[in-house]
Amino acid sequence: MVSETIQLRGHIIDSLTLPKVLDEILTRGANFTMLEVKIGQRRADQSFARIEVSASTHEALDDLVLRLRQHGAEVEDKGDAQLAPAPADGIFPPDFFVTTNRQTFVRIDSKEYEVQPPIMDSGIAFDLANKKARTVKFADVRKGMEIVVGHQGVRVVPVQRTTSRTDVFQFLNANLSAERPKGAVIREIAREFETARKENGKLLVVAGASVVHTGAAEYLEQLINWGYVDLVFAGNAMAVYDIESTLFGTALGVNLEQGTLADGGHQNHMRAINIVRSAGGIAELVKRGTLTRGIMHACVKGGVEFLLTGSIRDDGPLPGVITDSLEAQRVMRQKFKGVTLALLLGAMLHSFAVANLLPASVRTLVVDINPAAVAKLTNQQTFQALGLVTDVEPFLRELVHCLEQLRAKQK
Amino acid sequence: MVSETIQLRGHIIDSLTLPKVLDEILTRGANFTMLEVKIGQRRADQSFARIEVSASTHEALDDLVLRLRQHGAEVEDKGDAQLAPAPADGIFPPDFFVTTNRQTFVRIDSKEYEVQPPIMDSGIAFDLANKKARTVKFADVRKGMEIVVGHQGVRVVPVQRTTSRTDVFQFLNANLSAERPKGAVIREIAREFETARKENGKLLVVAGASVVHTGAAEYLEQLINWGYVDLVFAGNAMAVYDIESTLFGTALGVNLEQGTLADGGHQNHMRAINIVRSAGGIAELVKRGTLTRGIMHACVKGGVEFLLTGSIRDDGPLPGVITDSLEAQRVMRQKFKGVTLALLLGAMLHSFAVANLLPASVRTLVVDINPAAVAKLTNQQTFQALGLVTDVEPFLRELVHCLEQLRAKQK
Amino acid sequence: MVSETIQLRGHIIDSLTLPKVLDEILTRGANFTMLEVKIGQRRADQSFARIEVSASTHEALDDLVLRLRQHGAEVEDKGDAQLAPAPADGIFPPDFFVTTNRQTFVRIDSKEYEVQPPIMDSGIAFDLANKKARTVKFADVRKGMEIVVGHQGVRVVPVQRTTSRTDVFQFLNANLSAERPKGAVIREIAREFETARKENGKLLVVAGASVVHTGAAEYLEQLINWGYVDLVFAGNAMAVYDIESTLFGTALGVNLEQGTLADGGHQNHMRAINIVRSAGGIAELVKRGTLTRGIMHACVKGGVEFLLTGSIRDDGPLPGVITDSLEAQRVMRQKFKGVTLALLLGAMLHSFAVANLLPASVRTLVVDINPAAVAKLTNQQTFQALGLVTDVEPFLRELVHCLEQLRAKQK
Amino acid sequence: MVSETIQLRGHIIDSLTLPKVLDEILTRGANFTMLEVKIGQRRADQSFARIEVSASTHEALDDLVLRLRQHGAEVEDKGDAQLAPAPADGIFPPDFFVTTNRQTFVRIDSKEYEVQPPIMDSGIAFDLANKKARTVKFADVRKGMEIVVGHQGVRVVPVQRTTSRTDVFQFLNANLSAERPKGAVIREIAREFETARKENGKLLVVAGASVVHTGAAEYLEQLINWGYVDLVFAGNAMAVYDIESTLFGTALGVNLEQGTLADGGHQNHMRAINIVRSAGGIAELVKRGTLTRGIMHACVKGGVEFLLTGSIRDDGPLPGVITDSLEAQRVMRQKFKGVTLALLLGAMLHSFAVANLLPASVRTLVVDINPAAVAKLTNQQTFQALGLVTDVEPFLRELVHCLEQLRAKQK
Repeated sequence: MVSETIQLRGHIIDSLTLPKVLDEILTRGANFTMLEVKIGQRRADQSFARIEVSASTHEALDDLVLRLRQHGAEVEDKGDAQLAPAPADGIFPPDFFVTTNRQTFVRIDSKEYEVQPPIMDSGIAFDLANKKARTVKFADVRKGMEIVVGHQGVRVVPVQRTTSRTDVFQFLNANLSAERPKGAVIREIAREFETARKENGKLLVVAGASVVHTGAAEYLEQLINWGYVDLVFAGNAMAVYDIESTLFGTALGVNLEQGTLADGGHQNHMRAINIVRSAGGIAELVKRGTLTRGIMHACVKGGVEFLLTGSIRDDGPLPGVITDSLEAQRVMRQKFKGVTLALLLGAMLHSFAVANLLPASVRTLVVDINPAAVAKLTNQQTFQALGLVTDVEPFLRELVHCLEQLRAKQK
Repeated sequence: MVSETIQLRGHIIDSLTLPKVLDEILTRGANFTMLEVKIGQRRADQSFARIEVSASTHEALDDLVLRLRQHGAEVEDKGDAQLAPAPADGIFPPDFFVTTNRQTFVRIDSKEYEVQPPIMDSGIAFDLANKKARTVKFADVRKGMEIVVGHQGVRVVPVQRTTSRTDVFQFLNANLSAERPKGAVIREIAREFETARKENGKLLVVAGASVVHTGAAEYLEQLINWGYVDLVFAGNAMAVYDIESTLFGTALGVNLEQGTLADGGHQNHMRAINIVRSAGGIAELVKRGTLTRGIMHACVKGGVEFLLTGSIRDDGPLPGVITDSLEAQRVMRQKFKGVTLALLLGAMLHSFAVANLLPASVRTLVVDINPAAVAKLTNQQTFQALGLVTDVEPFLRELVHCLEQLRAKQK
Repeated sequence: MVSETIQLRGHIIDSLTLPKVLDEILTRGANFTMLEVKIGQRRADQSFARIEVSASTHEALDDLVLRLRQHGAEVEDKGDAQLAPAPADGIFPPDFFVTTNRQTFVRIDSKEYEVQPPIMDSGIAFDLANKKARTVKFADVRKGMEIVVGHQGVRVVPVQRTTSRTDVFQFLNANLSAERPKGAVIREIAREFETARKENGKLLVVAGASVVHTGAAEYLEQLINWGYVDLVFAGNAMAVYDIESTLFGTALGVNLEQGTLADGGHQNHMRAINIVRSAGGIAELVKRGTLTRGIMHACVKGGVEFLLTGSIRDDGPLPGVITDSLEAQRVMRQKFKGVTLALLLGAMLHSFAVANLLPASVRTLVVDINPAAVAKLTNQQTFQALGLVTDVEPFLRELVHCLEQLRAKQK
Repeated sequence: MVSETIQLRGHIIDSLTLPKVLDEILTRGANFTMLEVKIGQRRADQSFARIEVSASTHEALDDLVLRLRQHGAEVEDKGDAQLAPAPADGIFPPDFFVTTNRQTFVRIDSKEYEVQPPIMDSGIAFDLANKKARTVKFADVRKGMEIVVGHQGVRVVPVQRTTSRTDVFQFLNANLSAERPKGAVIREIAREFETARKENGKLLVVAGASVVHTGAAEYLEQLINWGYVDLVFAGNAMAVYDIESTLFGTALGVNLEQGTLADGGHQNHMRAINIVRSAGGIAELVKRGTLTRGIMHACVKGGVEFLLTGSIRDDGPLPGVITDSLEAQRVMRQKFKGVTLALLLGAMLHSFAVANLLPASVRTLVVDINPAAVAKLTNQQTFQALGLVTDVEPFLRELVHCLEQLRAKQK
């Protein structure tokens, strides 16, 4: 039997840290002895626990400790993080530390450095000259870069639960099923929007094609016009249907005014693409006065940043769409910096891509009529994510309505 | 090879009758010869076809002809329908004719009688004294009743498609998926409601518990108060949650005002049931002034009929709930007489039960967030059914909003 | 501020009892002081905590304590449970205690009595003469019965998590999504079946119509023939389709041998019903040699109990089907006594009904291709429930295959 | 009123062409006169119809005729197709003809040329020198290319339905819901596989990550080893999890042998990627003897082509993955040439991309546990698509089992 001593600190009882840690230990067939437990007497107090963990082999213990660290456990015998040079461009050293999206520190020369940005499934490069720790993706790795290996000297801060009652995101990973009332939650979200704007937060909207298909584009347009949105992230398809609907009144041939009664016009989206390509881009189409409404128009007019990426399903694509997924991820990481609130609307592929690139601290709201999509996105338990299983169109309509009321009050 | 000659009449081309008939014939390995085809030259004209159908055995031909009759084919050599006495109470004679929900005629003594009401999965009893043909369920069968057997002399009228452009139900079995815009359709449905009221139609609302859970009860209440609803059909659970929400502000313990932020109170629905049972019934609770809001209150106050049935999942039940399914079906058949428009809201079990008891001519609107439920209910292809895959709460909210606008205009 | 002192005992850390309790306290705006904490040093040790809970009002404190009791908290100042007579048949006294499905004790004259059976949403009647506490449903209440009111003197034992690694149900409420591998779990379930048989457990199978529709009836038949099944619970429809498929080779007209290539024969289920009614019942049909295969045949031949209930969707029904839901619930409670393992197969309505009538200690396996159904049934968190999102037919096929291998080994 | 005369030829009754055409005409508020109708007297005979179509404006008539052409209508006054030069690289002339995926001919100098390949949402470039008509995507367009504009002189052949009873694909767009028996269909598909191999068909398998997650990789491996598969198309993720499962026994950290009982190991997929990148590619890993099992291994060993594309969700990617979506589509179009049978397994994004690039004549089988995905892919009605709503793992297991039996018989 080999053993190590770990420490837990913070709201380790009510944030479920202690039980999860004990649970991991038992589930893996290891043992523990509680060396010391101090539980905070009152709500605001922090608690503390020292636990000796023992397992049958070094390997099993290492594996276990690695997992306990994910829950915020610190190994007492704190050494420095170990570094190894990347053997080639795009390749990590064999035992590289793989990040989560939680706040993470590495200890180098007995000093801790915060890793920036805290995003998932990356390695950690340490710049010895400038004393900076940053997450790097495979494509960022350059031969010789100093990469953290093993897990000694790495500290991951668990997401600690807020105890505020007025915070709609307080229930981490809550998931409102189709059968729950949503009116109150939408009102709360409207307040979050107001707060975000006042506090200079950065709001990211990820919009699936269903925003246009369900006839909800006008509400997103309104949010952009009112200045709530800082960045729109979408696929080529959403932009195409948005422009098709403005130019032809249809989205993939469905008449948006008359719903199912609509004319076909399956070729409209192809003509819309051709028109944008002929003009040289979306901004040019707005400048010429051809594009006068819609989400893309609102972004161009209001100077709101947008980022469009391509997929193998696309027609076109529109000029400006990034078709290379590596390049797209690079731009996404750059543009997502500083995002404080993310609204994921009926866009499964893009939402997963976003979830992979946002820190755990970003408040994320997932809206989708498909319960499986919402469950997948909120079940990761590493996010301040709130999921609503509902139709995108009435959600946005009601959100705009609530904001209207809030704005009226403020005048 | 044996053969029979069938005739088709009506809008047999554009209502797809002719192709379906030929399709059935070929699919079953039989053959046909077109003896005569007259296709209407213009839109309003009817068409006519005489087709000789041949198959290898008498049995195969009989089987085939039985199916062709479902599409409206008449066998030329029209004999009378054959009758056989029911051998015992609750038991049909072996070869009894099984009905669909389409308009059906039986020929007795060379005269045709319409079968009333035209509902599915029944037998046809013919009253020789009064010359009346009516559908009977197993429980209605009495020993000696004259029951139609075989399929000779029975004519089923296919659902013929309207060509009106302004009719939202014109697309039989249309199914608006989650990704379609629904605003225009809801406006059309509001107009249908207005029309139904003016023409003294009978509107049936089938309400699932999700109407209350999603916070939509106030909108259904409004529809009842405005006088659009003639009959509310639901399970014990919907009524319990409706009353729980009025008495305690929760539905199955979820606070409807504050959504997920709500207090538990899982026992509230049990207390609500106890209170109604103590009072002696829902109407009594209204009379006492204890129940002052909600769907059930609106029904009692407005004198709108309601029918509550029980299931093996129920707690309670409330007084007045019919717990025997045979008795419930008997009452349903009685109360559903004359229904012209049916609104099925998030209530799968009850919706299927309703679908089994309504004639094909009744306009039926299915609203459910579960695409599988909508598909099952509209795919039967024997209904003038329109399905919307959407959240019940915003659907009802928008419907009330559209009706408000229509009503304002009319003043 | 008012306060009470509660005690927690058992595996309160790793079964998450302590954190949940603290969480409830904080979420409700109350405060706590940890008076005493003893945490078990090793895996097998129990822990203990004494906590002073304070809230602003008596009502709030009562509400809170009620909820903490659900987590197993005991109030230190243990008084007796209070009793009040039922005011009338079918009606509880106003403040009656509403049960959960966990093991529950009431304290009368300073002695604790276990409440039997521990099922949800009932009241507790105490028989003063025989000193017996039992759960009663509305329909069981007789005027004058002594019913437990308030929550003083009632102790609810939380479901404590087993730490056995070999127990497939150890993960309470686990839910295997469509994207997870299921082979190993099905092998474990086969072993559970073997164990249940050896230990004289009682296995309940709840079978939806989809068991027949998907062509899985032969596998359930095999399980019955091998003697694993003690009770089959289903609706009228499952039995009808099972018999239709044996008599006509179809289920609701779909040819089960050839799948979609099948002939229609929509009327077959009606003829099947008529044949059973003519014979006088299912057992009679088997006796006559007309019914020679299928689930119902296997039950009759093997002397395995079955219970069929009716719903408002039914045709028929078959003789022996209980059509009254109150009577059905009464029989269900009786027949479910002693069930140790329940297999819920694609039968949402019946599964919910079962879940409402089984103690929390019964191991329950839910198999359904609809993720929402599985989630609803396993998310109640009061059950030893394991959910598999998968097709019923391959699940049963693989289960039979695994049992075959286990049985071969044992010879 | 303006009018044109159209002709319809072929199995226009039983393939529903005539009714669809009349339906379109009426739905759009236009009128028709049947000038001539000859209906084939027997099954093998073709039918013929001449119809005068009239509408109120030239535009409306043009629009209508465009749609009727999609159903195979030919305008009597057959002129040549009109050509216009592409104004710039990547840009079509304004009124370019947009293709479907059905067989299409263009008439130039009174001669018809077949357009190759017949894929959706493309333009048609005509090479005047070599007299060749081919579909071009936006990216293929070069300035000055002669592109077909308008719709005169373009003939689209409707998908004609086979009348063979033994053809499992005979029911165009059939969709087997979760509640249908699938055994017989899987046996038919096994026969299709055998037939395809004997007739030198080209079988494409599109594999989602769920093939690995559900533990079905070994069955796909078997199909590859037996030589049924000619091309595997997948995303980076499927290949990563396949390799992770071979190297570490997990897929995204889930132990595939023990299902939910498995160890975490979330970082395993990152290590797997690093190992492949270090080796220089998948084939190199096989050569070194590091990768010894799995789908990718089977492809490399058996010399079966595979095509991996990237998305914005990816980690890595693996060497050889095409990250640019335009480049990916170019390679897809090239590699998909000659595909006769396509198996789409739980891979929504990739399946849609494939559906966009395959001719309507390719037999396509969609297997997914998500009914919405299957419905979307088979509802396009332009495909010989068969959809099965079922779990991928048991589907592949049963398919391998059926092939095993077929192969045993043949020896």
